[in-house]
Amino acid sequence: MTTIAVDAMGGDHAPRPEVEGAVLAARELGVRVLLVGQTAAVKHELAKHSHRGLDIEVVPASEVITMEDSPTQAFRKKKDSSVHVAAKLVRNGQADGLVSAGNTGAVMAVARFGLGTLPSVDRVALAARFPTARGGVSVLLDVGANVDSKVAHLEQFAIMGEIYYRAIFGTRRPKVALLSIGEEEMKGNELTREAYNRLKQLPINFVGNVEGRDVFAGNVDVIVCDGFIGNVALKISEGVAQLIITMLKNALQSTLSAQVGSLLSRRAFRDFKKKIDYSEYGGAPLLGVRGVAVISHGSSNANAMKNAIRVAAGLARAKTNEKIEQELSAVAAAARP
Amino acid sequence: MTTIAVDAMGGDHAPRPEVEGAVLAARELGVRVLLVGQTAAVKHELAKHSHRGLDIEVVPASEVITMEDSPTQAFRKKKDSSVHVAAKLVRNGQADGLVSAGNTGAVMAVARFGLGTLPSVDRVALAARFPTARGGVSVLLDVGANVDSKVAHLEQFAIMGEIYYRAIFGTRRPKVALLSIGEEEMKGNELTREAYNRLKQLPINFVGNVEGRDVFAGNVDVIVCDGFIGNVALKISEGVAQLIITMLKNALQSTLSAQVGSLLSRRAFRDFKKKIDYSEYGGAPLLGVRGVAVISHGSSNANAMKNAIRVAAGLARAKTNEKIEQELSAVAAAARP
Repeated sequence: MTTIAVDAMGGDHAPRPEVEGAVLAARELGVRVLLVGQTAAVKHELAKHSHRGLDIEVVPASEVITMEDSPTQAFRKKKDSSVHVAAKLVRNGQADGLVSAGNTGAVMAVARFGLGTLPSVDRVALAARFPTARGGVSVLLDVGANVDSKVAHLEQFAIMGEIYYRAIFGTRRPKVALLSIGEEEMKGNELTREAYNRLKQLPINFVGNVEGRDVFAGNVDVIVCDGFIGNVALKISEGVAQLIITMLKNALQSTLSAQVGSLLSRRAFRDFKKKIDYSEYGGAPLLGVRGVAVISHGSSNANAMKNAIRVAAGLARAKTNEKIEQELSAVAAAARP
Repeated sequence: MTTIAVDAMGGDHAPRPEVEGAVLAARELGVRVLLVGQTAAVKHELAKHSHRGLDIEVVPASEVITMEDSPTQAFRKKKDSSVHVAAKLVRNGQADGLVSAGNTGAVMAVARFGLGTLPSVDRVALAARFPTARGGVSVLLDVGANVDSKVAHLEQFAIMGEIYYRAIFGTRRPKVALLSIGEEEMKGNELTREAYNRLKQLPINFVGNVEGRDVFAGNVDVIVCDGFIGNVALKISEGVAQLIITMLKNALQSTLSAQVGSLLSRRAFRDFKKKIDYSEYGGAPLLGVRGVAVISHGSSNANAMKNAIRVAAGLARAKTNEKIEQELSAVAAAARP
């Protein structure tokens, strides 16, 4: 049975959504969940749910990393944090993966240094999911584990992203693209022009450059970029979505007929908000670490936590890391003279 | 009187919105407009509007640059295109600025090489406007005139952006920020960390790093970044907005009550769509060229064209280029040992 360690103290509303998400995951997905955190708080929350017969266990961790902690501080000083203990469970083989809605920088630091990197991987990558106009999902990586990526790193991101997409979405030959500022091969900056040349030689379904708007168009599956660019892209998307919701709310309160209209279409709006809500899309895996680490949004609700657990279990079951090792070593071997 | 040369053949629906926008601008803004393009088509369109007493003139240009033309091809081969002729009018002093809704790359090439760059400017920058949650506007530059910017270029973008913002929005001390992936000085990549250090020494109101989401938050006025990043940011924002409108439309057609609700709130939606419609925000000036060049969205309507003409006239009247020259030479002089 797949076992996932869940950081019960990570998110903005911890441990409520973490515990509820764990209960849902154990019930619906048939995974075993280790809820890691301050025992009293976690047990108090767990008591609110009927969880008889479910494979859920509470693992104590005395410290909590906050959103204010710097990643290095958190990694070095809070050795008994729920994230550290979750990572330890993965390292010791007691769990197949971990999920945290905590401070992204801190979770990345603990996962990267606490779990270590796969032998063939030079840089780990955070892979975020985006909803698309076609109703599917596109994956963008890296969205912030690195800055100043080299061509060799983008090459590894492409391979890791492709394997991740196959594992989670079952697409046999995901379309992999490079994020640039024009579709033609020569468009882009120094990094992307060189990367284009290398990606087209890889044993993946590389379809060329795409532009920013294609992240949401659904015409490609995996989009590769440097972590600085990816992080700006992620944050700017959140900014636009937030702005649009605010504007829409204001517009719908502006006149009486709009208010009545808004009441009548309340359910449609709820569905709509749910669709553009990133927390619905589960978490972002940190690809390239030994073991599985999935980071979800700080504002994750129980459903988002369940989905993140689903992703972690899916990656573990699909033996993603073995595949990453295999393919990266094959590419490295092919490149040797 | 300020004279603006308008590329009448540029946009997706040319010359209709161009001509109507010119009529509106001449009537409401008191500018003189030279409509540049194929005489018959432009005059035919102009005849649909009452323009007696308005200072509008048609200037012939035989060729049309299409969205399919490559920038270099368009620049070299279509010497009698409406964009080339508009640029010539600016170069010869017959117009104070030009506006085009045409192929962005081609217009940039013609403006940059046809008009030339200001003596103190190393790289021109395209400055896009974004609506903010506070109801104001933020300006992001560069959004695609360059890639692989150096620190000295970002420094010039900051100064040009600040002068532009002051000229158009009347803010005495616009807040200038650097686009990065965290607020702290040490967050970011090599380029932004070094740029941070230089920007804080400039005689501008530099407020530090901001993240992607701040582009729409309205807490800063001018945001500086490399053109590759800026272009991805611009396109991704368009992608999100497009996706959200599609999803909202679908949600509102899903049930009868939602349909009725949507009918009742029709006007609110129209206002909302107008607010998030980038074309409403006029054009993006290409800062740093000799003369004024404003590039608007290909799908610009008459109102967007009018607004772009307003921006061009505003930049000309505020003597933006003289100020850019002054400030950049002062900064260069201060940097000399």
